[in-house]
Amino acid sequence: MGSPFDVTVAEMRRRTSLKWHTYPDDVLPAFVAEMDVQPLDAVVSAVTGAMLAGDTGYEAGPTSPRGTAYAEAFAGFAARQHGWDVPVERTRMVPDVMLGIVEVVGAVSAPGDRVVINPPVYPPFRAFLEHAGREVVTAPLTAQGRLDLDALAAAFADASVYLLCHPHNPTGTLHTADELRAVGELAARHGVRVVADEIHAPLTVGDEAFVPTTTVIPDAIALHSASKAFNLAGLKAALAVPGPAADDLARLPEIVGHGVSHVASIAHQAAYDHGDAWLDKVRAAVRSRADLVERTLADRLPQARWDRPAATYFAWLDVRDTPAVVSSGADPARLLLQRGRLAVNSGPTFGAGGEGHVRLNLATSTEILTDALDRLTTTLAAPG
Amino acid sequence: MGSPFDVTVAEMRRRTSLKWHTYPDDVLPAFVAEMDVQPLDAVVSAVTGAMLAGDTGYEAGPTSPRGTAYAEAFAGFAARQHGWDVPVERTRMVPDVMLGIVEVVGAVSAPGDRVVINPPVYPPFRAFLEHAGREVVTAPLTAQGRLDLDALAAAFADASVYLLCHPHNPTGTLHTADELRAVGELAARHGVRVVADEIHAPLTVGDEAFVPTTTVIPDAIALHSASKAFNLAGLKAALAVPGPAADDLARLPEIVGHGVSHVASIAHQAAYDHGDAWLDKVRAAVRSRADLVERTLADRLPQARWDRPAATYFAWLDVRDTPAVVSSGADPARLLLQRGRLAVNSGPTFGAGGEGHVRLNLATSTEILTDALDRLTTTLAAPG
Ligand SMILES: Cc1ncc(COP(=O)(O)O)c(C=O)c1O
Ligand SMILES: Cc1ncc(COP(=O)(O)O)c(C=O)c1O
Repeated sequence: MGSPFDVTVAEMRRRTSLKWHTYPDDVLPAFVAEMDVQPLDAVVSAVTGAMLAGDTGYEAGPTSPRGTAYAEAFAGFAARQHGWDVPVERTRMVPDVMLGIVEVVGAVSAPGDRVVINPPVYPPFRAFLEHAGREVVTAPLTAQGRLDLDALAAAFADASVYLLCHPHNPTGTLHTADELRAVGELAARHGVRVVADEIHAPLTVGDEAFVPTTTVIPDAIALHSASKAFNLAGLKAALAVPGPAADDLARLPEIVGHGVSHVASIAHQAAYDHGDAWLDKVRAAVRSRADLVERTLADRLPQARWDRPAATYFAWLDVRDTPAVVSSGADPARLLLQRGRLAVNSGPTFGAGGEGHVRLNLATSTEILTDALDRLTTTLAAPG
Repeated sequence: MGSPFDVTVAEMRRRTSLKWHTYPDDVLPAFVAEMDVQPLDAVVSAVTGAMLAGDTGYEAGPTSPRGTAYAEAFAGFAARQHGWDVPVERTRMVPDVMLGIVEVVGAVSAPGDRVVINPPVYPPFRAFLEHAGREVVTAPLTAQGRLDLDALAAAFADASVYLLCHPHNPTGTLHTADELRAVGELAARHGVRVVADEIHAPLTVGDEAFVPTTTVIPDAIALHSASKAFNLAGLKAALAVPGPAADDLARLPEIVGHGVSHVASIAHQAAYDHGDAWLDKVRAAVRSRADLVERTLADRLPQARWDRPAATYFAWLDVRDTPAVVSSGADPARLLLQRGRLAVNSGPTFGAGGEGHVRLNLATSTEILTDALDRLTTTLAAPG
């Protein structure tokens, strides 16, 4: 096998998940965070073995001797990948990252409290927080896609929680240790608790390293999962990891772990235990896909602006100055779907700062990405 | 294969889920709702196939053409099993039954509202409702394990929602059409909405049929899942099914489906599509296990009282008059664990009416159940 992204459109159309089943067959899907990737053998074997053995009961909870199996696998992975010493015994399993965020935010704030987010950002942040009875306050990223400390200071004045996206989806930004330190000081000054969604942490694809939030902000709580980096969104599981000064997880009731899927936990453990080499190939393939985007846009759509992601497998493209967008004034994602039969995520769904942008999924074969870029450049380069 | 319960202790100890990993090896586990069962081939194949194909992305949501695949499989099963015409297009997928209950209760009531439950009942009912900011009001079952209409009328006076367990866990009671009709009238009179947890519906093991709540109470909402009947607690998925006069599910935000596991959905669909014959064997095996309990208790522990379950694979045993309980005054589950090295669910954890009771899991091999009954009768028949 060359790259884990060596897949065909025919194979992809046999899958039954969201990416290849939302639009008619003439539309090429490059939206939603699913990878067009061959699965990791160790995950396939682990799940198949569990199914054959009928090992499909409940995941062991925090009071069982097996209750830390997932956390131990994650800790091994985090030590190798990030040089991070994870406090296994103080972690808590949660059904997935978003439900984990809701529980953690619930533990550190009260209904009606304000939670700060940084648009443009993963759209479910707002939807889940509002559904959980919190008020959302925004502190937009700077034009360069970095944290804006002045905007954060203003937003923190009245807020209880800051939901940080690190690495940041959709921009692919990795926050630096200095930025995190400044955020931590600001949060401490305003009595704001930091909750960090670190689901994309394994997907560093540039030269910068991922700095775990809790190693810089001691009372932060981070959420991790193998679901994004190993394409296991369909087998959800996640882990809440407290910083050394965060003791809130101990107060979460036992039922918070009720929704955890045992078979998903088995799958993620296999990925964390045996996935490093596979992940290296995935990261290399994402880098080469980013090269392809860079060359293609420079050649064929010079009005498009973007920064290569430091992490994630997304290209966040500012296409507001492209001929088709300028002349039509339409949302680029709508133009691409209608004229180019290409499905990307629409920038405005990510909130302020998303206008004129689209999010393109790079985690696919060179052939499929080439087709996507053809559709994208042809559509957006055409005026009118 | 004779019975799907033909398993050995050695096989069970190789499983990694909760049931066989909470206690040391000298304790025989007969607690928690996991079955000691050989898996259904169709489920093993479906999940293995999905894993090999890398079909591990997101479950399609309500707006996708594939968004009703689970509901259609359930509707076929419900038509064959219960003669029930399920309104596929009006259903909503939820991550599991308990999270579904929280969402549905959230849609039909406000924080602080009162929700009625019938103890003794599945302990997470109270824990989840309280965690969701609802006040729990109890209307205990009668001594015969039936719904108590007077207690319900009193509780409904001040309540918004009634969380019905049908079939009832732990008693195994199936509510009759007449009882449901009376409940529906009472609820309508008090403006109380009925939410029915019907997870055990496929597990009818007596002569009575399961009557779907929404066929009798038009504005009720029911929760279903293949996880209990097909031993898929480790691959969670569930469906909210509205009665003809309940339009609340349409108001649930899209993110309510975010936590649904695609691979679990594939597993449940295979169970619903291909599991009828396997399920017949499971039900026959549970009946024969109930016979064994009946004979053994009559012989060796005549002071124990119980009614065979009409549904579920539980034996709910009233052992308060057995010699060991009378002489020690202790919780029978504690006596059984300490003296008999048998783990059962403790009656008092199910709330009022649970004192002096234990819940014994019948879903196992004759050999394992015989061992469990030996430990139970020997321990409880011994005075002092
Ligand atoms: C930033 C971020 N958080 C959370 C998720 C979803 O995680 P989960 O499915 O575990 O809730 C995603 C998925 O793309 C994401 O990008
Ligand atoms: C009555 C009842 N409801 C719900 C559940 C759990 O369902 P889920 O795991 O889908 O939340 C159980 C498990 O035993 C149960 O007995």
